[in-house]
Amino acid sequence: MVDVDQLVRDARDGRPRAVARLISLVEGASPQLREVMAALAPLTGGAYVVGLTGSPGVGKSTSTSALVTAYRKAGRRVGVLAVDPSSPFSGGALLGDRVRMSEHASDPGVYIRSMATRGHLGGLAWAAPQAIRVLDAAGCEVILVETVGVGQSEVEIAAQADTSVVLLAPGMGDGIQAAKAGILEIGDVYVVNKADRDGADATARELNHMLGLGESRAPGDWRPPIVKTVAARAEGIDEVVEALEKHRAWMEAAGVLAERRARRAAGEIETIALTALRARIGDVHGDQHLAGLAAKVVDGALDPYAAADELVAELTRA
Amino acid sequence: MVDVDQLVRDARDGRPRAVARLISLVEGASPQLREVMAALAPLTGGAYVVGLTGSPGVGKSTSTSALVTAYRKAGRRVGVLAVDPSSPFSGGALLGDRVRMSEHASDPGVYIRSMATRGHLGGLAWAAPQAIRVLDAAGCEVILVETVGVGQSEVEIAAQADTSVVLLAPGMGDGIQAAKAGILEIGDVYVVNKADRDGADATARELNHMLGLGESRAPGDWRPPIVKTVAARAEGIDEVVEALEKHRAWMEAAGVLAERRARRAAGEIETIALTALRARIGDVHGDQHLAGLAAKVVDGALDPYAAADELVAELTRA
Repeated sequence: MVDVDQLVRDARDGRPRAVARLISLVEGASPQLREVMAALAPLTGGAYVVGLTGSPGVGKSTSTSALVTAYRKAGRRVGVLAVDPSSPFSGGALLGDRVRMSEHASDPGVYIRSMATRGHLGGLAWAAPQAIRVLDAAGCEVILVETVGVGQSEVEIAAQADTSVVLLAPGMGDGIQAAKAGILEIGDVYVVNKADRDGADATARELNHMLGLGESRAPGDWRPPIVKTVAARAEGIDEVVEALEKHRAWMEAAGVLAERRARRAAGEIETIALTALRARIGDVHGDQHLAGLAAKVVDGALDPYAAADELVAELTRA
Repeated sequence: MVDVDQLVRDARDGRPRAVARLISLVEGASPQLREVMAALAPLTGGAYVVGLTGSPGVGKSTSTSALVTAYRKAGRRVGVLAVDPSSPFSGGALLGDRVRMSEHASDPGVYIRSMATRGHLGGLAWAAPQAIRVLDAAGCEVILVETVGVGQSEVEIAAQADTSVVLLAPGMGDGIQAAKAGILEIGDVYVVNKADRDGADATARELNHMLGLGESRAPGDWRPPIVKTVAARAEGIDEVVEALEKHRAWMEAAGVLAERRARRAAGEIETIALTALRARIGDVHGDQHLAGLAAKVVDGALDPYAAADELVAELTRA
């Protein structure tokens, strides 16, 4: 068994291997999972979690890397969680792609982790918040959560951030893609990257229009800014950091931060509870009970709702 | 209230509006949902469900349409369910895209339905099987379930088919994409469409290699065939139908069909049961209980696992 308290102390001292070990413990179904979670709880709440979403090719990794540099200059400890919900590769497989991050690899003030655990118990919607919790407890002041694509899972993961950054690039027909995926609804800050290319102004205008930013809002409402960047040359990155800090300050003043975190925690608790109940379907009653109900449904003797009623009744009697 | 029995009779008589109405009733949380499901149950089990998956641009709609034509020639009643898990548009919105299907619009032996209900109660993993059940009960002998993209949701939906067809096209770097999305694991039949283009043979060879089709298999195991088609000219479509019929016959002989359907029903029951339990978290104990637990997690007074334990304990006491 691992000495969890020692591991947590080491993680807080900035030892990357201790952080890695803790994330592995919370990712998997380790028997010490609960012990780890209990040890982390009182140490969490200090990190500011920023989500970055956008279609492949908009420059998410480059932007994340540039943001890391900016936050490091300001002396902050930074955690990066790169999440690929569509990939079957787990662990550090993504790192091959992430050469742009390599400049931070030797910086003890930066911790970088990839997650790509499709098919994982409970999925990333369950695993990502636990990893964020580890980075938070380990003393990361800013945690950047970067997702690879723009699907539903990405939107769910982005929703776990305090502030969501949506990235676009000029001339990719990106606006429509983003709208389709539903990510236009989740942005607190919009970034048009590769702004040195043709069409950057048009993309920003289109975005401005799609978001209805020209319309009047209630006083005190947040108006998402659109920031133009060339992340590869770090242009506009300070403005992104400024927009993030403004959003954070607004959330704190308006009570939105506490609200978002409470909603996030509620979702997390619910997911864990439902995962536990799902496990119980197998454990307590045996798969045989479910298999028997399934056979009746296949035969048309029972409809799936009536079968589910029986399952729930058994489950809550246990 | 709708006269469910009459509606089911009308659907079996091939009236498309009755089918549409039934699907709407099972898609939403209609108070008559259970009545509908109970009425459908004894009428289901006759349909052969074929899933079609592949990256955008491989020609899924064209292939589906060509398959419909082929099955209609053989005198079969056909249902088509076009599913877009990434789209926020619900109902018939997709149909705009689906002009290729219009040739079947006036054929009473074909029923076409689009589903794009992201954010739907329980999601498409829940809604799609219910719609399939309606089409099955309405007397469709073949149901083609076409998904738009290649994400995790698509893989889940494809897994609900009796036979899964994975489509590729030459020169799209498709093999790697497909492998990443995990769809190479789910194909029972592979189709290289647009086979009149350069690179079709290379794609088929690459696929053959990736699937390990050259390796020996246990006698009696299914060896997924690779069929080359030009769906726009209906070339190779008869071969696809033949491959599907072979797979179906193999599944029946090997007992695999019954096994797959039982597993599918079990998953369906579980999903409905968990959705019911999730609703109960809100209904019975009030959101207040969950909100109180969430507040403790945000404060670090409780970890999410301990909170989930409390929730499960309350839930199963009710």
